[in-house]
Amino acid sequence: MKTTDLIAQIKKKQSFLIVGLDTDLDKIPKHLLKEEDPIFAFNKAIIDATQDLCVGYKPNTAFYEAYGMKGWKALEKTINYINEKYPEQFTIADAKRGDIGNTSSRYAKAFFEDLNFDSVTVAPYMGKDSVEPFLEFEEKHTILLALTSNKGAYDFQTKIIDGQEVYKHVLQTSKSYKGSENLMYVVGATKAQFLSDIRKIIPEAFLLVPGVGAQGGSLRDVCTYGMTENIGLLINSSRGILYNSSGQDFAIAARNVAQQLQEDMQDILVNRT
Amino acid sequence: MKTTDLIAQIKKKQSFLIVGLDTDLDKIPKHLLKEEDPIFAFNKAIIDATQDLCVGYKPNTAFYEAYGMKGWKALEKTINYINEKYPEQFTIADAKRGDIGNTSSRYAKAFFEDLNFDSVTVAPYMGKDSVEPFLEFEEKHTILLALTSNKGAYDFQTKIIDGQEVYKHVLQTSKSYKGSENLMYVVGATKAQFLSDIRKIIPEAFLLVPGVGAQGGSLRDVCTYGMTENIGLLINSSRGILYNSSGQDFAIAARNVAQQLQEDMQDILVNRT
Repeated sequence: MKTTDLIAQIKKKQSFLIVGLDTDLDKIPKHLLKEEDPIFAFNKAIIDATQDLCVGYKPNTAFYEAYGMKGWKALEKTINYINEKYPEQFTIADAKRGDIGNTSSRYAKAFFEDLNFDSVTVAPYMGKDSVEPFLEFEEKHTILLALTSNKGAYDFQTKIIDGQEVYKHVLQTSKSYKGSENLMYVVGATKAQFLSDIRKIIPEAFLLVPGVGAQGGSLRDVCTYGMTENIGLLINSSRGILYNSSGQDFAIAARNVAQQLQEDMQDILVNRT
Repeated sequence: MKTTDLIAQIKKKQSFLIVGLDTDLDKIPKHLLKEEDPIFAFNKAIIDATQDLCVGYKPNTAFYEAYGMKGWKALEKTINYINEKYPEQFTIADAKRGDIGNTSSRYAKAFFEDLNFDSVTVAPYMGKDSVEPFLEFEEKHTILLALTSNKGAYDFQTKIIDGQEVYKHVLQTSKSYKGSENLMYVVGATKAQFLSDIRKIIPEAFLLVPGVGAQGGSLRDVCTYGMTENIGLLINSSRGILYNSSGQDFAIAARNVAQQLQEDMQDILVNRT
């Protein structure tokens, strides 16, 4: 997907919400467990119920790998369903991959070509030659971990290298990578106060922002400090949307939360100067 | 697997070789492509031909994910085959995972419980709470990326934080993680000169060392600077072993290279003071 198409979708829907599909068989409604593929049945219902309120979906691969072959089948069915039925949606494989060059190429092929995701999250620890193989794919996006939403983010990411925090070093350095126009970055909503500084380094790039909701981040703070002229933000909510009812109405319950988030976003978009 | 069992195996076989199963359909002998599952057919032949010369196998998950469902099926068959037929082998899922706590738990479950690997490689960028969920599993090992074999290792890993290189910071910090007795570390063979310093921080922990062979690292240098009383080294070779013949004799050709490595290791073990 072209970034311009993503921006157009945001403006049309007045939403920059991503629904995280962290589907957990222990948390989905019990009646779905009778289905042939309960993970896909849950995802399909959530997608159908929220697709007009969000601009993308982000399955976290860990939740699928945890179920082995059955999980991978459900992941394939989910991405195929989105691509066929709602091709305007921006799809994110939240995989946090990264390896030496020839191996990163395999991951890129897996997520961009075989599964046909629009984007994949990538860890920066192994440096330039572990990231660049992902950047070679046209109209595909590589979302580099910069400042994550968890507490452990303070263990390395905020430490100082050459007078600059590690995450800023990642942002700065990655701008010189070949294909850097295909980069986006993960910045946790729990770190909203860091966003002004981040925007000095990457004024335009899209940020994928997890941590609103279950992890305690504030949507308004993120927008205050991180929004650009072209929005530049994708706010993810996973558990906060998915598990609001264990009854037959689970998809409606998910829709209600997504709608609240979309309305908050619309309000922010309408009122910004 | 207990570390003591791994050490016993090393001493018995006079080998600390790990065979990396980076199986690539473009590189395996053409006659195998007729098999129902060419990836597994190749792996099985390589395993049968090398199992007395090595102490473990390391499939890199990227190579399997690149083939979608077919690839995951082959990965499952491969690990099951090793666990059933050669249970003494130390198995490594080279996955380089790492995510927020509840998600890392899913990855740990996937690799340690469902697939029953003895160990998994993990990226440290997200810090303590992204690593500790892996460390909860008894007799399972978490192999943390410290100093990788690629050029990009110099982008972040060797930069200075608080007067100490990032990779040393990772080593030092990880020692305080809950369950740290289950930690091993990745240190590339191409960085052998760093091993003396590394041993000052982690004198006993096992190191998984990729980069001998195709990437140019030296076995002797690694042993000179990194070996401990209990060996403490697992030397991986993947491409260097796998792809030495495209004919019917491919497994014998792989065995020959593995045997040369095992003999070099035996020579080092016999002659060390």
